[in-house]
Amino acid sequence: MEKNVLANTLTLDSVRESLIRQEDTVIFYLIERAKYPINSPVYHPSFAGVSGSLVDYIVKHTEALQSKVGRYESPEEYPFFQENLPRLVVPTYNYPQVLHPAGASININKTIWDMYFNQLLPLFVSEGNDGNYVQTATCDLQCLQALSRRIHYGKFVAEVKFMDAPEDYGPAIQAQNRDALMELLTFKSVEEMVKQRVKKKAMVFGQEVCLGDSKGKYKVDPSVVSRLYEEWVMPLTKKVQVEYLLCRLD
Amino acid sequence: MEKNVLANTLTLDSVRESLIRQEDTVIFYLIERAKYPINSPVYHPSFAGVSGSLVDYIVKHTEALQSKVGRYESPEEYPFFQENLPRLVVPTYNYPQVLHPAGASININKTIWDMYFNQLLPLFVSEGNDGNYVQTATCDLQCLQALSRRIHYGKFVAEVKFMDAPEDYGPAIQAQNRDALMELLTFKSVEEMVKQRVKKKAMVFGQEVCLGDSKGKYKVDPSVVSRLYEEWVMPLTKKVQVEYLLCRLD
Repeated sequence: MEKNVLANTLTLDSVRESLIRQEDTVIFYLIERAKYPINSPVYHPSFAGVSGSLVDYIVKHTEALQSKVGRYESPEEYPFFQENLPRLVVPTYNYPQVLHPAGASININKTIWDMYFNQLLPLFVSEGNDGNYVQTATCDLQCLQALSRRIHYGKFVAEVKFMDAPEDYGPAIQAQNRDALMELLTFKSVEEMVKQRVKKKAMVFGQEVCLGDSKGKYKVDPSVVSRLYEEWVMPLTKKVQVEYLLCRLD
Repeated sequence: MEKNVLANTLTLDSVRESLIRQEDTVIFYLIERAKYPINSPVYHPSFAGVSGSLVDYIVKHTEALQSKVGRYESPEEYPFFQENLPRLVVPTYNYPQVLHPAGASININKTIWDMYFNQLLPLFVSEGNDGNYVQTATCDLQCLQALSRRIHYGKFVAEVKFMDAPEDYGPAIQAQNRDALMELLTFKSVEEMVKQRVKKKAMVFGQEVCLGDSKGKYKVDPSVVSRLYEEWVMPLTKKVQVEYLLCRLD
């Protein structure tokens, strides 16, 4: 079971544990999406019968449904279609408030959406059309939600780093110096380790497991997962961290 | 990519390949559900603000949304809340018709639902309550849909077995002899192999992957996955196969 950092005191260890566990989730969902070919009608800007694309329709309506019953009450969850989300119909759950309130509104899902559909998706799905449009869009939603949660988790990372060394971060925050903050947050050797680890996970989780020797064919190319983390997940997480820290003393 | 058996001629190989690939899906989703503790308020028969339980609400409304845009047009997909599903708003996709029409209405999701919540779930999630109710119910939905697809895939298994040897199945079908059909469909050595394979998959996919040696702790107990297949998935698949065959000559 994943340790729930929100229910406990936020520590560097609990944050790290959650980040590592979330890698598995991201990779599982990429593998599930790769079961289906690209199924391009899902992304056509006007899918017959719905307004807009099918993936827009599924994401927007699923978010609306989940929002009504409290998904976005959690400080770990951020919607892609923030406008006109329906009102909560259930009682509020009192999540422990560990983040600075000024950071609550940071939401870079627009960037994550563009990255996922325009850059990542073509790298790991095959050509073709098998008619499984709803299943495909649902897999996309799972990937998007997992990536969004992972990247916005940067807020918790930043909070715990700040609490650990306010004297290091304070001056850069007061000077609103993005570059200095980015430098404080960057650890090349850790990033290299993450890249290697997610590549290994993609090999382990994406292999064909048989009772004899497993075959050396992966459901998602492990180097794509490593690239996803290097080019997008880690830089976007740091972007969230910087944005969060910039308003940490508001 | 999973070979789409519907778009090709149905063969024993393509059916077997799909069954094997679906094992991965089932195990990934069990692992994702195990991230959260039981979160028992999700199952309380009256969750404040919605009618019925929260999991009923999420499954029913997600199915309604997905049904409108065509999920249940696929002969691989079966809803849990079949009554009052909204009408399709998109054009029909012409899935190849490989199943006998009389088998289309077989739906044992009521049994799958009871098995999942009353028997399986308590075996692999921890005690506790972390407030992630919507995420928990969504993970349940993923598990239910994956198990339902896998078990109802018995229709394709039965069809391909029947086409392969109509002379073996014909007399038992004409005699409406369930026991004889069950015997024809049962291969103890194959079932043993499946049990071993899903156990191995649970060990591989559920391990904590590190850059050094992986730790010998699994996110879902591999013997629970093996038991899931032995006690429920394989017997229920055979039940679907028998029901399908009984009407195969209608």
